[in-house]
Amino acid sequence: MATRSSWIQYAADCDFSIYNIPFGVYADADTRHHACSAIGDQVIDLYELCHHGYFGILNLDSSLFKHEFLNEFIALGKEVTNPVRNRIIELFSAGNTELQNNPVHCKTILKKQADVRMLLPVHIGDYTDFYSSIDHATNVGTMFRDPANALLPNWKHLPVGYHGRASSICVSGHSFHRPKGQQKPPDAELPVFGPCKLLDFELETAFVIGKKTEMGESVSTAKADDHIFGMLLFNDWSARDIQTWEYVPLGPFLAKNFASTVSPWIVTLEALEPFRTKGYVQEPKVLPYLQYTGDKNLDIKLEMFIQPEKAEPTKICTSNYKYMYWTMEQQLAHHTVNGCNLNVGDLMGSGTISGPQPHEYGSMLELTWKGTKPMKMSDGSERKFINDNDTVIIKGWCEKDGVRVGFGECSAKALPAL
Amino acid sequence: MATRSSWIQYAADCDFSIYNIPFGVYADADTRHHACSAIGDQVIDLYELCHHGYFGILNLDSSLFKHEFLNEFIALGKEVTNPVRNRIIELFSAGNTELQNNPVHCKTILKKQADVRMLLPVHIGDYTDFYSSIDHATNVGTMFRDPANALLPNWKHLPVGYHGRASSICVSGHSFHRPKGQQKPPDAELPVFGPCKLLDFELETAFVIGKKTEMGESVSTAKADDHIFGMLLFNDWSARDIQTWEYVPLGPFLAKNFASTVSPWIVTLEALEPFRTKGYVQEPKVLPYLQYTGDKNLDIKLEMFIQPEKAEPTKICTSNYKYMYWTMEQQLAHHTVNGCNLNVGDLMGSGTISGPQPHEYGSMLELTWKGTKPMKMSDGSERKFINDNDTVIIKGWCEKDGVRVGFGECSAKALPAL
Repeated sequence: MATRSSWIQYAADCDFSIYNIPFGVYADADTRHHACSAIGDQVIDLYELCHHGYFGILNLDSSLFKHEFLNEFIALGKEVTNPVRNRIIELFSAGNTELQNNPVHCKTILKKQADVRMLLPVHIGDYTDFYSSIDHATNVGTMFRDPANALLPNWKHLPVGYHGRASSICVSGHSFHRPKGQQKPPDAELPVFGPCKLLDFELETAFVIGKKTEMGESVSTAKADDHIFGMLLFNDWSARDIQTWEYVPLGPFLAKNFASTVSPWIVTLEALEPFRTKGYVQEPKVLPYLQYTGDKNLDIKLEMFIQPEKAEPTKICTSNYKYMYWTMEQQLAHHTVNGCNLNVGDLMGSGTISGPQPHEYGSMLELTWKGTKPMKMSDGSERKFINDNDTVIIKGWCEKDGVRVGFGECSAKALPAL
Repeated sequence: MATRSSWIQYAADCDFSIYNIPFGVYADADTRHHACSAIGDQVIDLYELCHHGYFGILNLDSSLFKHEFLNEFIALGKEVTNPVRNRIIELFSAGNTELQNNPVHCKTILKKQADVRMLLPVHIGDYTDFYSSIDHATNVGTMFRDPANALLPNWKHLPVGYHGRASSICVSGHSFHRPKGQQKPPDAELPVFGPCKLLDFELETAFVIGKKTEMGESVSTAKADDHIFGMLLFNDWSARDIQTWEYVPLGPFLAKNFASTVSPWIVTLEALEPFRTKGYVQEPKVLPYLQYTGDKNLDIKLEMFIQPEKAEPTKICTSNYKYMYWTMEQQLAHHTVNGCNLNVGDLMGSGTISGPQPHEYGSMLELTWKGTKPMKMSDGSERKFINDNDTVIIKGWCEKDGVRVGFGECSAKALPAL
């Protein structure tokens, strides 16, 4: 059971417990961009916290928390970011009165989450997306290729990945227009142009690089965690009809680069450590550079909702990060084994996280099996894919022995094509 | 014939004529990073030029030319960058004595190219690579798939492209280590790990985005040139054995992201305008959003050299940008038709530029036809692919009616695997 509590009250199912202390960047009428953390329904302004001397012995300049993005803070390394997080835990733990007894300071340092706007937390230099859920890869291979050989020959030997577009990654709460593009209907001789008809989401998480590497440098699975600052929820929006036509032979392009959505709070790897669990048994055995020891998977519960215009959200799937075949540590070791360099703030998507059961599939493509099994919404309407004005919401959290560490929401709305 | 000349002397075959006036960033013992242009064998320091009042009526702050990258300058738009370029042409034209007669100013403004180090000219947010040479795509399709159906069904309907890694794009003159990675020899049951055996170059050009777009915005072929600041030479280093094993189904990843090389000088689209030529006849007719009017291809002569350690360079191919099936304007219209947003400094690679003749192929893969026809170097050695310590050099220039506008060199050295 949870043994620590905070003098800020929160419910048992709150994502932002004293065990979490994620990092983000917020804005409001008075603040252009300040780094922040969260407890309960409150935002903790880290600039104000530092400015008022609460990070005293850490010797930090408060301007560090006034940047547009967290990159400079993260780049200081875990030897700084972990003590900052631990100090916040200390300050806000029940019984600590340093800040609690100073109502003037509390007033500038604490704001209601509902009253602020969360911003994209990091400048993303490069964005990579993996394809690491075996159930997702098997489902897609079954639908589009050959059920008897659903996984391609390389799939169990390396974490397949590809580069994506960083410029169109937005923070939760945004909207975007349904993309237009070329599609080739199965019975048509020539491609046609128009709004995508098969707009889909992909239920993913992503991790943020916290320590850079130089060209030529490789990171082992054993050292990978030093380079992972934390995780977010991620929706890799996909236009399936555009994808089918364009992706051979060089991979997805316009089918993906019109928009992606991240949740605003980076949950640190340290906050996630208690929720580590056994990795997938990998057969055949992977090459030595991909081998690892210890429990490197994570038990992160994931849920996905569709909220039609003027209706309540309908839960359409529950999945779990633990269904990942390849771990983040393996993804990172693979990404750098050729000497590719990483920068702080780079984002690495998991790929769609599907579980083995049909209600655990992480995309409409799989949930409705290419549109052949429409899903019922709470307002009585049906969905094969995403309709105009639908809002799609991901939720994710870890829970164990009464301790909850969550990600909040990753939400975006699909507007009609322009 | 050229009617304009400069009071700085240069040979007829010099890339940096008074008609060129490209943009770059240099460093030397006194200068961390200043924007610059070039004439003959000289670098023109634009910070010093501005600081000494030579951009008078343009009302520019000289600090604009002191940034690490040209992005801020380029972002001011062609309404600023074109007058700056025109003013430089005016100042350095034969007969203009404003600067010429001021030896003190000349001494701070002009430096020998041989005495400075050219830096990466722009911060590249996102990098996209296309696959737009019909001869290259046909050769690759013939070798790896089916000679009777070498081009995939989408190829003549859209400029196939994919996202690449921005972090490992380096400026000419660098070296990198041969990448390691998984390969699966054709007769092996399982993949093996080790240094890439089939290291290759790709002869490309790239263009730099000069005007940003917002998400949801599309750029027509007619407006595309407003968004293209200029062009560079580009080498998209490729590890063919890694590529063959990893690229299905999501495209190239570790086979490409270990290193790419750009030339240091951005030759403006305005300098290239006189060398426009007719585009490829596109059959079948492309969709309306890809149609364009006017001569949108470019006659850019390209040459590629391999220089073995301690030997003279051997010219291994001559090609020409005019062999591109898809124009830059079409690539840009396609890239944004789905609403994908562009930022100033984004880089768009052409894809390997091969011509119809065997000596015009733009990669070792094609030149040696998968290694079956080795090439002889000037030192008597043979190459199927790139050896350790080989330096690969691209040269490119336009020439017409006695006017020459060139790119200089794009050069990088492949060191042994670490």
